[in-house]
Amino acid sequence: MIISVIGSSNPATREHVDMAEEVGRELARRDVMVVCGGLSGIMEAVCRGAKSEGGTTIGILPGRAAADANSYVDIPIVTSMGYSRNVIVVHTGEAVIAVGGAFGTLSEIGHALSDGIPVVGLKTWPLTSNGDGVDINGSIIQAENPLDAVDKALAAVANRNHR
Amino acid sequence: MIISVIGSSNPATREHVDMAEEVGRELARRDVMVVCGGLSGIMEAVCRGAKSEGGTTIGILPGRAAADANSYVDIPIVTSMGYSRNVIVVHTGEAVIAVGGAFGTLSEIGHALSDGIPVVGLKTWPLTSNGDGVDINGSIIQAENPLDAVDKALAAVANRNHR
Amino acid sequence: MIISVIGSSNPATREHVDMAEEVGRELARRDVMVVCGGLSGIMEAVCRGAKSEGGTTIGILPGRAAADANSYVDIPIVTSMGYSRNVIVVHTGEAVIAVGGAFGTLSEIGHALSDGIPVVGLKTWPLTSNGDGVDINGSIIQAENPLDAVDKALAAVANRNHR
Amino acid sequence: MIISVIGSSNPATREHVDMAEEVGRELARRDVMVVCGGLSGIMEAVCRGAKSEGGTTIGILPGRAAADANSYVDIPIVTSMGYSRNVIVVHTGEAVIAVGGAFGTLSEIGHALSDGIPVVGLKTWPLTSNGDGVDINGSIIQAENPLDAVDKALAAVANRNHR
Repeated sequence: MIISVIGSSNPATREHVDMAEEVGRELARRDVMVVCGGLSGIMEAVCRGAKSEGGTTIGILPGRAAADANSYVDIPIVTSMGYSRNVIVVHTGEAVIAVGGAFGTLSEIGHALSDGIPVVGLKTWPLTSNGDGVDINGSIIQAENPLDAVDKALAAVANRNHR
Repeated sequence: MIISVIGSSNPATREHVDMAEEVGRELARRDVMVVCGGLSGIMEAVCRGAKSEGGTTIGILPGRAAADANSYVDIPIVTSMGYSRNVIVVHTGEAVIAVGGAFGTLSEIGHALSDGIPVVGLKTWPLTSNGDGVDINGSIIQAENPLDAVDKALAAVANRNHR
Repeated sequence: MIISVIGSSNPATREHVDMAEEVGRELARRDVMVVCGGLSGIMEAVCRGAKSEGGTTIGILPGRAAADANSYVDIPIVTSMGYSRNVIVVHTGEAVIAVGGAFGTLSEIGHALSDGIPVVGLKTWPLTSNGDGVDINGSIIQAENPLDAVDKALAAVANRNHR
Repeated sequence: MIISVIGSSNPATREHVDMAEEVGRELARRDVMVVCGGLSGIMEAVCRGAKSEGGTTIGILPGRAAADANSYVDIPIVTSMGYSRNVIVVHTGEAVIAVGGAFGTLSEIGHALSDGIPVVGLKTWPLTSNGDGVDINGSIIQAENPLDAVDKALAAVANRNHR
């Protein structure tokens, strides 16, 4: 199984980095591969965590060089298509865990929810209704901490596969 | 000049459709071309409005057939790359006007703000801080009505070009 | 109707540039819009020709700035996705006219033929059988000169629509 | 290291399939990962070969479901962007080995050569000069058999990294 982990290349707090690293460790302990955008910040933290527990990490890179990947990426995917690669990051996972995040992360949350891919949030964007008929309830599954996020992501995948 | 107009293919209310149509008319009156995703709902409404005032409309289509475009699209761009085309919709305009919108629209808002493209909102997603260091103030420029949205989009372009 | 014109940003001879310009003029005379990659060389020549006869020109740009377009592009489409944009260039036309061309043009010919889009060649890549079951006969429709290329492209579109 | 292997989903002969499978085995024996388009035919054969020798296989899928991958793909990358994914297949490898191939393969050869990525050919498209200033000599490095193809691909990577 592969789970996507998304977040900022330049997170605001050490807490976000620590959460991402623990998400990576926990996914690896459960034999789940991590896919992310392959760069720095949250992307590097989740890969570092996963590698510390012997996991496998995939980085979907926006640029043209595998060398752009952070040093914890096992499988660098070189898209050469800029931020259109965000779509690939979320489609490659069976669920998405968002840790904090700036506007790029927001674009990924939109792509995932638009395609019915479950999104679990750790201090990520709060979504409130915009009055255009979108059902916000449960659109982002809120998690309390990294282990809870992994639990909820795996439950969402199991629930989705069951249907 | 080209301005992007984004919103749902299946808007919840007649009010959203009417607003999009008036945005299209006003852009055409000011000799601004419209770019959108080329399909139904808000995309069709803004194109219909623009054509009623002699404007020019561009539709960036996700599929493989020009025939997928709504009947008010002058220039169908056939991307064949699914919802990755959202990135092209927002980059092709000098500013973005969002009318309501579901999760696809949210992805476009994220891509635009991530790249510094001004976004003006008409009853679109409210963004509230997520605590990850993102400056939310002014990230979406709120408009009162379609004419105000067009005014604010053009002012944002002028301000951006001036810098 | 829209026809794609493809070729090098850095053509080897003046003859190629002149052919592209005449293709642009002839397409405009027949009220056919031109789509191309929007940059220099053959792309600029076909746009210049089309504009000299009052035509409409679309440039599918690889980068992130409309200002990258040559000065004869009416509608700059800003993809921000690098050479993945080649796929969009060929899908947006109902047929493709290739004038000379380097490896980027070869990629576009491959994408077009792979999807059943007719390709007319003016001194472009000669394709010879590779022994893997591909029917080469007629894969690229060879043209004698710019007017013949436009004639053959329009005939291929008519033939395709008829089926 | 990662090497791309490209070819038809529907190869004409058993010989092409056998060559691809042997390429996969040899890459795995040398601890090189395989990236391909993830579907059937040559893509499946190279993955089957690699797995038979304990290698790792990556499939860059055009559609929206990981289940589209052939059963020998370890890492399915779900692009959801159709044949634009061809660009990612060739950029993700440090060199490309083409086994036979139809027009999709031709598009990939074009993208690779356009970006300076070495291409080794096993009974693939013969390229002959088109008179537009393209240096054809050595553009596709011809190989005699699967082991020769792997040797030449690795030599091309070493040579490229040395410069």
